[in-house]
Amino acid sequence: MIEISSTKNNFIKEIKKLTKKKYREEHGHYVIEGVHLIEEALKSPAMVTTIIMNNQGYELLPGLPMTSDAITYYLLSDEVFRNVSDVPAPQGMMALVKLNKEVLPETVTGNLLLLDNVQDPGNVGTMIRTADAAGYAGVVLGEGCADIYNPKVLRSMQGSHFHLTIMEGDLAEVIPALKTKGLQLIGTELNPEAVDYRELSLESHVALVMGNEGQGVSSQLLQLTDKNVYIPIIGQAESLNVAVAAGILMFSLQS
Amino acid sequence: MIEISSTKNNFIKEIKKLTKKKYREEHGHYVIEGVHLIEEALKSPAMVTTIIMNNQGYELLPGLPMTSDAITYYLLSDEVFRNVSDVPAPQGMMALVKLNKEVLPETVTGNLLLLDNVQDPGNVGTMIRTADAAGYAGVVLGEGCADIYNPKVLRSMQGSHFHLTIMEGDLAEVIPALKTKGLQLIGTELNPEAVDYRELSLESHVALVMGNEGQGVSSQLLQLTDKNVYIPIIGQAESLNVAVAAGILMFSLQS
Repeated sequence: MIEISSTKNNFIKEIKKLTKKKYREEHGHYVIEGVHLIEEALKSPAMVTTIIMNNQGYELLPGLPMTSDAITYYLLSDEVFRNVSDVPAPQGMMALVKLNKEVLPETVTGNLLLLDNVQDPGNVGTMIRTADAAGYAGVVLGEGCADIYNPKVLRSMQGSHFHLTIMEGDLAEVIPALKTKGLQLIGTELNPEAVDYRELSLESHVALVMGNEGQGVSSQLLQLTDKNVYIPIIGQAESLNVAVAAGILMFSLQS
Repeated sequence: MIEISSTKNNFIKEIKKLTKKKYREEHGHYVIEGVHLIEEALKSPAMVTTIIMNNQGYELLPGLPMTSDAITYYLLSDEVFRNVSDVPAPQGMMALVKLNKEVLPETVTGNLLLLDNVQDPGNVGTMIRTADAAGYAGVVLGEGCADIYNPKVLRSMQGSHFHLTIMEGDLAEVIPALKTKGLQLIGTELNPEAVDYRELSLESHVALVMGNEGQGVSSQLLQLTDKNVYIPIIGQAESLNVAVAAGILMFSLQS
């Protein structure tokens, strides 16, 4: 165990830089925080390489499912821990996990959620958590989406990225590829001319495409799908939050 | 029109204090920001008393539906406007709206959403927006909920508080009162022993109770409802985000 009591330590500086996507990709790791999330990571095939604690976190260590010997441990003074922690009330435990991005959904069987330019980290995280709850097999992040290793995305995912396959790809290529695999491609529109989602009949697994908070799914992608659905708005709101709409659709479109 | 070019001006100090709930209640007003929201407020019975602009906002003024002569106008220098604005890319227009809190849902007819101790401003705002979209008649905020005039709640509501009735009340009193009015009271639980929401049959308008992010609906309130439902989780996620769950239930439980 390596003890650190100065915020000027190089390892501490490195961890702080991991809040930036560019540096995460160079370094090959991302940071998770909180005992529950670390427990989820240790139970999953994800690779936890480092555990970082203060004294409070150290006491919780024996309760964790230690699945690997190849973990490095750091014990930080309270002051240093507070300095690197990203949350207001830290539990005293963080971990470094290896980045593991899959590129194409070739080997995944089941329903998929495809995100087109969803920018808000909370929305991306919440949709991945909901896809997990709805029994979806994976999520494909298209261009323009918030990075899933962004701390805000990690907080709202609540560990769901350890449960399903997260992929990145150009949706204009992913959609035709999934069609040839036999999935039913469903786009979403804010357009009462589209199909009412309650009238959709499903014959196979679906790939549901959700779009940007302001613009929705790009018109280019909407032309590649099999069908485009909408959720009828009954009151005076102009639209639904994209994560709420995704929840309604994923729990309704169960094949 | 009153022109202001100093951040030390008393009116500017006052507006900044309106971010605090206590001061909003003393003052009797809350702040909304952005042209779209101000347009919604002007079209609703809400009382807009003051419009605050910079030069950019001033140019947009002729496009607004001016329904009242009793509005005071302030023109701020760009620097002062940026200083009071709550958003990263301000459109140059804010307004003060009179606080208008109803206490009991005596006169509202239709489905209602009841929130028990929902603390996150984004969740409260998103649920009110969804209730509007689902054609609900009102929302009752029980104790412990984020204040709806909090800037974050206002941003995620997107003006829906101008479309439906927002009330505050002690849910332990509100629930029995709504029962005597003939509403079907539906609590929500994270408990597979509860009723699967897809099996619920509705005979009247509903009052749906959603609970705190961590603890759910309090056990005291769950004993007062007619039925308690849950959403079956298919994957490995432990729960759904409360705003997503509320969306699934409100769009499913249409009476």
